[in-house]
Amino acid sequence: MSYSIHIGPNIRKSPFFDGTVADGVRGFSVYNHMYIPGNFGDPEGEYDRLLNGVAMWDVGAERQVEIWGKDAAALVDRLCSRDLSKTKVGQGRYVAVCNHKGQLINDPVLLKLDDHRYWLSIADSDIQLWAEAVAHAEGFEVLVHEPDVSPLAIQGPLAEDLAVDLFGDWVRDLKYFWFRETELFGIPLVLCRSGWSKQGGFELFLTDGTRGRELWESVREAGQQYRIGPGAPNDTERIESGLLSYGADCRLPDWPADPFELGLGHIVDLDSDSDFIGKAALKEIAAAGPERRRTGFILDGPKVTGNEHPMPVLKGDETVGVLSEITYSKRLEKNIGIGLIATDLPEDAFLTVDLAAEPDPDYRSLTLADLPFL
Amino acid sequence: MSYSIHIGPNIRKSPFFDGTVADGVRGFSVYNHMYIPGNFGDPEGEYDRLLNGVAMWDVGAERQVEIWGKDAAALVDRLCSRDLSKTKVGQGRYVAVCNHKGQLINDPVLLKLDDHRYWLSIADSDIQLWAEAVAHAEGFEVLVHEPDVSPLAIQGPLAEDLAVDLFGDWVRDLKYFWFRETELFGIPLVLCRSGWSKQGGFELFLTDGTRGRELWESVREAGQQYRIGPGAPNDTERIESGLLSYGADCRLPDWPADPFELGLGHIVDLDSDSDFIGKAALKEIAAAGPERRRTGFILDGPKVTGNEHPMPVLKGDETVGVLSEITYSKRLEKNIGIGLIATDLPEDAFLTVDLAAEPDPDYRSLTLADLPFL
Repeated sequence: MSYSIHIGPNIRKSPFFDGTVADGVRGFSVYNHMYIPGNFGDPEGEYDRLLNGVAMWDVGAERQVEIWGKDAAALVDRLCSRDLSKTKVGQGRYVAVCNHKGQLINDPVLLKLDDHRYWLSIADSDIQLWAEAVAHAEGFEVLVHEPDVSPLAIQGPLAEDLAVDLFGDWVRDLKYFWFRETELFGIPLVLCRSGWSKQGGFELFLTDGTRGRELWESVREAGQQYRIGPGAPNDTERIESGLLSYGADCRLPDWPADPFELGLGHIVDLDSDSDFIGKAALKEIAAAGPERRRTGFILDGPKVTGNEHPMPVLKGDETVGVLSEITYSKRLEKNIGIGLIATDLPEDAFLTVDLAAEPDPDYRSLTLADLPFL
Repeated sequence: MSYSIHIGPNIRKSPFFDGTVADGVRGFSVYNHMYIPGNFGDPEGEYDRLLNGVAMWDVGAERQVEIWGKDAAALVDRLCSRDLSKTKVGQGRYVAVCNHKGQLINDPVLLKLDDHRYWLSIADSDIQLWAEAVAHAEGFEVLVHEPDVSPLAIQGPLAEDLAVDLFGDWVRDLKYFWFRETELFGIPLVLCRSGWSKQGGFELFLTDGTRGRELWESVREAGQQYRIGPGAPNDTERIESGLLSYGADCRLPDWPADPFELGLGHIVDLDSDSDFIGKAALKEIAAAGPERRRTGFILDGPKVTGNEHPMPVLKGDETVGVLSEITYSKRLEKNIGIGLIATDLPEDAFLTVDLAAEPDPDYRSLTLADLPFL
């Protein structure tokens, strides 16, 4: 069944919206109160471009929370569980933002623009409200606001060649998550080696929203020789690559999870000097050992087409985990999924999941798999 | 152009989701990270039922933030600009939640369940994050969480008769925004005289999400004699009635507004004892006089079909306001809209708006109108 989405004034448009419409966008979702393209009607071609060429994505809905002022570094330390003391200007870091219980409430990329200015490039929750409230209540002298910044991603093995054509050879030396303020045909932007895929690529953080259509078309034109085409963050590739999807893999209150369970222990620095929010709770969780761990799943049976909501993983009739998202991987010729499983699961556990609602259950057996799949 | 929306695991489903699918929902939007029905394919019939009969709406996406504990009343006072000192148990109040600049960040209905337990029944922004951060940082001894509560609205002139059939004659004495904990065929819920229309009606706050399908079908069955049918919050009726749509009429950062500008001065109590967030800023705004005020608009020319985003209102080529949302009103046989206009506008100002994008502008002249239209 297919449902329509109404384009109305209560949800924001990305600066690239008109560009995606001109290029034949067919479906949208909503992310950070903004329309985000879901597909352009050619799932095989979109996947293929990401894997073998270069795809361009309107990820303007990945909004920035700018933290700017005397206490900017201190507030960022208070919000993020990662030790950021060695972060350089021009460097991005993947960070976890937790609540006081140690549950993940966002997993942004933090960009350090200068010693007093940071962007949190956020997943789908209102971290601006969280950061503003903490800043005011705890007396941090900072401005917390949303700047006019909207990323356009180019992703895929040919993205680097395209970026070199657009910006110059220096791009090849840009390390992962590092960035530089620059421009393209006079359009101001921040170029960062980043993006929600494991195929390599960049995000062009447009810093003048009035020039979105122009940037979209400039990138498309320059990419013709690489047969660039439009696409969108790709669920199949992200499951194959084991990327986290905040919202699908965890979200309060339906499926809360802490960073240890989600495999983000490497960005939780309990021994740092920072008194970050959630630290006390995470110390307790670390001491007790997390009850669940992140895992891949392989599902038997006919090809799956995706799932509408996370599903319980069963051992007999006991829930021992959650299957967050599934897909059919053409590369692996397998049904694969991603989710959480109890850490104390016996090795010979026989696992099942019901993919369909009553009255016609569709039980599949599951085996665990290491992440990433590919 | 019509776009599809993908139903996937990163956005939540309401407990009534399956019920709306069975009843032929055709479009969804996303509100508070949850799918919310947009239409059932019969716009005239849906409007007609709301105006002349009874419509049932899945408004489960109107989530609750529960504030519970010793300091619950104090935290609610800190968050809301309204003097709540006389609020009784069983009473709801329409409230404004502002940031420190006095800008509206949500306009919930507050339900006082007992002296230590409140629900904020929220519009589309993550007020749970805001409330949690304030509570922790400022040391309020409360639990802030999202309870298992999802409203189903029955709206329209026959909604009261239906509610009496379902719950008994006591319903007729329930005052506006007052509520009572009760049940229907054993399904636990809170019945409140409320809803996002001016046609009268109730919201059934289901308190056991596993029973959503059952409640949906029970209400539909009992409503057959009133020719009940499914629908969704109706933009035409809300503009006619002058209701606020947080997201369309204001939203940070694109179109911020303070409660005075939005016509919510009656729920800002600057003389109360409460030190609510935003009070200092709102005192300054009140002293200077707000720069804009809420107004209706009448647009000339052919029938409009709605707008995709808020549009600047022009006097010559000077922006003097914003037209947030437009619709064609069959009852008025007019194009009408809602928005904000400069308070110092000369009486004889000639106003225009461009409804279309370049290269084919569609200029309309505008006249101001009092709200509500009807």
